[in-house]
Amino acid sequence: MEKPPTGGFLFLLYYFAEWQQENLKNVWGKEVIKVGIVGGTGYTGIELLRLLAQHPQVELHAITSRADAGMPVSQMFPSLRGQVNIAFSLPEEARLDQCDIVFFATPNGIAMQHARGLLDAGVRIIDLAADFRIQNVQVWEKWYGMSHACPDLIPEAVYGLPEMNRENIRQARLVANPGCYPTAVQLGFLPLLEEGVIDCSSLIADAKSGVSGAGRKAEVNILFSEAADNFRAYGVPGHRHLPEIRQGLASMARQEVGLTFVPHLTPMIRGIHATLYARIHQDTDLQALYEKRYANEAFVDVLPAGSHPETRTVRGGNCCRIAVHRPQQGNTVVVLSIIDNLVKGAAGQAVQNMNIMFGLPESTALTGIPLLP
Amino acid sequence: MEKPPTGGFLFLLYYFAEWQQENLKNVWGKEVIKVGIVGGTGYTGIELLRLLAQHPQVELHAITSRADAGMPVSQMFPSLRGQVNIAFSLPEEARLDQCDIVFFATPNGIAMQHARGLLDAGVRIIDLAADFRIQNVQVWEKWYGMSHACPDLIPEAVYGLPEMNRENIRQARLVANPGCYPTAVQLGFLPLLEEGVIDCSSLIADAKSGVSGAGRKAEVNILFSEAADNFRAYGVPGHRHLPEIRQGLASMARQEVGLTFVPHLTPMIRGIHATLYARIHQDTDLQALYEKRYANEAFVDVLPAGSHPETRTVRGGNCCRIAVHRPQQGNTVVVLSIIDNLVKGAAGQAVQNMNIMFGLPESTALTGIPLLP
Amino acid sequence: MEKPPTGGFLFLLYYFAEWQQENLKNVWGKEVIKVGIVGGTGYTGIELLRLLAQHPQVELHAITSRADAGMPVSQMFPSLRGQVNIAFSLPEEARLDQCDIVFFATPNGIAMQHARGLLDAGVRIIDLAADFRIQNVQVWEKWYGMSHACPDLIPEAVYGLPEMNRENIRQARLVANPGCYPTAVQLGFLPLLEEGVIDCSSLIADAKSGVSGAGRKAEVNILFSEAADNFRAYGVPGHRHLPEIRQGLASMARQEVGLTFVPHLTPMIRGIHATLYARIHQDTDLQALYEKRYANEAFVDVLPAGSHPETRTVRGGNCCRIAVHRPQQGNTVVVLSIIDNLVKGAAGQAVQNMNIMFGLPESTALTGIPLLP
Amino acid sequence: MEKPPTGGFLFLLYYFAEWQQENLKNVWGKEVIKVGIVGGTGYTGIELLRLLAQHPQVELHAITSRADAGMPVSQMFPSLRGQVNIAFSLPEEARLDQCDIVFFATPNGIAMQHARGLLDAGVRIIDLAADFRIQNVQVWEKWYGMSHACPDLIPEAVYGLPEMNRENIRQARLVANPGCYPTAVQLGFLPLLEEGVIDCSSLIADAKSGVSGAGRKAEVNILFSEAADNFRAYGVPGHRHLPEIRQGLASMARQEVGLTFVPHLTPMIRGIHATLYARIHQDTDLQALYEKRYANEAFVDVLPAGSHPETRTVRGGNCCRIAVHRPQQGNTVVVLSIIDNLVKGAAGQAVQNMNIMFGLPESTALTGIPLLP
Repeated sequence: MEKPPTGGFLFLLYYFAEWQQENLKNVWGKEVIKVGIVGGTGYTGIELLRLLAQHPQVELHAITSRADAGMPVSQMFPSLRGQVNIAFSLPEEARLDQCDIVFFATPNGIAMQHARGLLDAGVRIIDLAADFRIQNVQVWEKWYGMSHACPDLIPEAVYGLPEMNRENIRQARLVANPGCYPTAVQLGFLPLLEEGVIDCSSLIADAKSGVSGAGRKAEVNILFSEAADNFRAYGVPGHRHLPEIRQGLASMARQEVGLTFVPHLTPMIRGIHATLYARIHQDTDLQALYEKRYANEAFVDVLPAGSHPETRTVRGGNCCRIAVHRPQQGNTVVVLSIIDNLVKGAAGQAVQNMNIMFGLPESTALTGIPLLP
Repeated sequence: MEKPPTGGFLFLLYYFAEWQQENLKNVWGKEVIKVGIVGGTGYTGIELLRLLAQHPQVELHAITSRADAGMPVSQMFPSLRGQVNIAFSLPEEARLDQCDIVFFATPNGIAMQHARGLLDAGVRIIDLAADFRIQNVQVWEKWYGMSHACPDLIPEAVYGLPEMNRENIRQARLVANPGCYPTAVQLGFLPLLEEGVIDCSSLIADAKSGVSGAGRKAEVNILFSEAADNFRAYGVPGHRHLPEIRQGLASMARQEVGLTFVPHLTPMIRGIHATLYARIHQDTDLQALYEKRYANEAFVDVLPAGSHPETRTVRGGNCCRIAVHRPQQGNTVVVLSIIDNLVKGAAGQAVQNMNIMFGLPESTALTGIPLLP
Repeated sequence: MEKPPTGGFLFLLYYFAEWQQENLKNVWGKEVIKVGIVGGTGYTGIELLRLLAQHPQVELHAITSRADAGMPVSQMFPSLRGQVNIAFSLPEEARLDQCDIVFFATPNGIAMQHARGLLDAGVRIIDLAADFRIQNVQVWEKWYGMSHACPDLIPEAVYGLPEMNRENIRQARLVANPGCYPTAVQLGFLPLLEEGVIDCSSLIADAKSGVSGAGRKAEVNILFSEAADNFRAYGVPGHRHLPEIRQGLASMARQEVGLTFVPHLTPMIRGIHATLYARIHQDTDLQALYEKRYANEAFVDVLPAGSHPETRTVRGGNCCRIAVHRPQQGNTVVVLSIIDNLVKGAAGQAVQNMNIMFGLPESTALTGIPLLP
Repeated sequence: MEKPPTGGFLFLLYYFAEWQQENLKNVWGKEVIKVGIVGGTGYTGIELLRLLAQHPQVELHAITSRADAGMPVSQMFPSLRGQVNIAFSLPEEARLDQCDIVFFATPNGIAMQHARGLLDAGVRIIDLAADFRIQNVQVWEKWYGMSHACPDLIPEAVYGLPEMNRENIRQARLVANPGCYPTAVQLGFLPLLEEGVIDCSSLIADAKSGVSGAGRKAEVNILFSEAADNFRAYGVPGHRHLPEIRQGLASMARQEVGLTFVPHLTPMIRGIHATLYARIHQDTDLQALYEKRYANEAFVDVLPAGSHPETRTVRGGNCCRIAVHRPQQGNTVVVLSIIDNLVKGAAGQAVQNMNIMFGLPESTALTGIPLLP
């Protein structure tokens, strides 16, 4: 066992290093980001807490919940005991205007009511709900069944899929964090559409989600006794993520796309598995195409040819794993794309966006190894 | 409370009815079917036992297992205690030649070794494995990786999908019971292909199965700790059910079909959910088409328009429930087709076939209500 | 295949038998029991439907639900499609007074409001909730937090545990169907207490229940994402089933008993596993004791010495399976007692009680084989 | 955003801090621990990898597997892709004698064959199996059914429960890492036994484990379709963890203890919930007793009075959470003690022991927040 150095400058450096490891936050010379979370009692809220609590440059300023104001967050989520020592506060008392950034982990329709005020106070925003995901406000209002409270802000909002929009995210004041299905589906189709090797008129996305994707709401159809040992499709006539995905795919393809999107509920807690189908109209080395496109992406992992990704391999991690197949060398390409819906599909991607916005290494606080088994 | 009748003939009839209810089997005047099961220690084996034990005209003659000969079946499967009082016997001591019918609930490649002998002894056969499912023996040998032991019997074998082949099944000596995925997929596509309203060149079947579909084998990848809280595709480059499904669909369409088939493993015990995609090239009332086609089928239930069938609604039952969608009135039809893989996908369909072969009401012993929740 | 007989009387009998099989209900000479169910939208409600729909002498007169009146029950529970063709009706329009028997599958506190009226109309009652389980009304009011609406009826109520009270049930107008935990715990302790071989002062019942035991209520803590892959105790300071169990055990022991009862929630849909501990103060052959006590009970199955019952072996069945152990031949007896909480722990036991009340064979409609796997 | 300092020494310190964050391992002045893992293909093996890969002072020297030598560990466990870049090696080629410490994540009976050689080479050992857990070699040989290969080493072995043996662990060459059940049960009983407030003659430990506790072995009884939606006890006549727990409890109580231990399998992947029962014979403030005893323990969390810990709150974390109850103020104490069987019950505790052995902060690499939901 080595001894610590004993003399002068080296001695100083050594103890500085020691001290620093014990005090990873607020490191001298490092920026501290003051963070607020609005609506922290859902699954994306606790997931944000889990990730941000271990972020070396984040100071958690406030987390709001009208219903549970005053309750320590670790009482609602005892997994945080000893690691997160903050209580829920009332929104009106949280002084969110003092934050550097505010995450909205709220139902749809909340962020749009507060965005203007916060932006005017110099606070940057990441909305994990859908308020700013759709650029066409008429489309948004039709699918979400409400009037938009601040349509003028929509053009400014940046769609927070770093693999598509990294440069825009860097400067953004207002980031619309993608939905969980849209993240898995768009990352899966991206190389094919950018390269123009498939027929865009009849894409199919058959997606399966764990039950946490439905949120932490008291509803009968997501009770254990209803959802366990059971499998079902839902929203086949039309799911709210359809226009979001279509908008993203069209942007990649630089043309309109035809998409059939069928989501399913599968009896697991976390995870999305998107199985994507398209017709190839131009011969190409699909494996090489994917590997090249994602070579520099920290959070997209292209598996070796012939692989079948399992959702548990990203459980708790921010990675999207992708395999691309061309069964029997036919003209149909099958892409398998998996994420953890609460991490890369929500809170993790939000932290990734925050890292980009504040000039930090993109992986900060996102390198935890997935929990398997 | 009514009193029983007291006089003469009515009295006699009354007590006959009483007695009969206590002695449902071997009813005077009813045929008794002597049944043998080869390979009864897997999930299709126990499921056959569960169904046949409550069949009023079946006498269970023998159930074989080389490894467990001598053990009462209710010791291996205590759910049968008090209801099934037979022990596993060695195949060579089971006198299967004395049966009226023998079910093979064995791995692939076993039934073909015994079929000739049993048929010659006048025993009818239902093979729940794949030995006689593919008419083209070269195709079979390629996908199953072995030589066929009795290719001469293949032409005689009847593919046991009653909704397609009821009349042939009636007379068959040798029935190839369909695979689980093929049952769900074929029943889902059947009306579309018979009616010729879709483009047959690029059908897609995205199927999800509970883990019992992988059988009761000591394998790491289907351990609880591997398969729970996890979702994955498998066999994307090519699954053995592909040629079986393609053969069936081609027969319905009276032309070759192009099919992409992607099976997935979902963390539930029983159930298959097949999500089917095709392009419509002829406008038609899809709901009416399905309802009409299956109006007289006891075990295919077409759900009302807009429905999403749940696999648990057929848990333990022999029903296939189907919903047909045309999202956003586009040109893609989406069919949702569910079965219990161990019942309509295996043992239940085998009993249905037996009922047809022996002229019994097709639903005999198959009317149990699915277990929900 | 045998031919049917062709002459005279035999011919007649044969076709009568044929006809009878097709018309199992309303058999001439058989009593038909008109049944009403109050509160049919929970899990005990649908389980009653599942069992009663296959009962040869039951006519389902009405099933009520204020919230869902008018909806076919098979729309809420599609597993019943094609087998149960009745709709929910408003309680006030259901004419329950015309029934022979009414089951209350309601929350606590409902049956007691309607019992007097129905009894006066000559209707017999089985309450699956707790209103009439506790003979001491003060104890009941303390644990259930409400005033009892008809304390005068309590003395008449018969506690519906057939293995204890069969003779009283036969004549009862009002049966209090036992709770799920109390059924498993009482049947497990019964032989020991009747025989007086254990110290009654410090019994321990460590019980584990599937989530369906918590009912079909929109509550966050029984969501799939909360209850899956998780295990927890609850109600350790005091659970409502404690006084019910204590009353039953005291009755068996003919003295007060000291009981520690700890219920747990386990991530499965159905099933209760009670692990019971007591100190033996009199040497005896425990295995023989249990086998003898339950020799004539159709729904209690004493497993061979050394067994460990699995809850899945009673999934969907009315059986209670019990194993008794004396580890290392010490002075502690360990009893393992399992039931399906929705069947022997609720709806199945209620049907068993009805069969007893109406003089039918006790197993009628209760012989379905459990679903394994 | 703050600018980095620009002048002289501060500048140097700043960039040193920067550089250090990018190079957390092999920090100048920090000891690097060379680690070997024997038998890395099971669940404790991958869990060790997950934890050690993020340990700032560990260098993973080798991980052995005879069957899978040559395969990258991230191929078997894709959750490690991009984070662990080592392949399995043959034991005889792994040069384990060059390690500072070797973990045995092997079946029982392996570590004892290699311990002498490694110790002689100056390598310290942590055995996650049972070879060195029992001080009485006759007892060990009886329960484990084999002869011990190096009984002379047993006296030297330190039982690796830090909350009991921290000082001995510090100096130990050979640590016997506790079993999963023994960890949960011993930490639950510890304050009561040390303080002498309970009757030691009839302790009861009713323990429930997730299926990963049974290991990653190809066995039918832990298949998904066998273990899901099912609950059962096992090993009631006698489980190997019984003598280990009894030895530990006796050491705490400084007298022999009587213990009934009943383990159960519950359908979840990770987690142990031990429900402990004892008779109080001395009145005391139980809550204060527990809080005081564990006040300085980083990995034992005493919950507020009245709590019911949930296993998911420690999923992936090294914490043991405990609640203590005295139902109805009777004389029975009920302790609820939960751990993640793969972390505090195996790999996490092993890393904790390693940290102690090498003088590191005990929590190093063990502060990850549990994954909830």
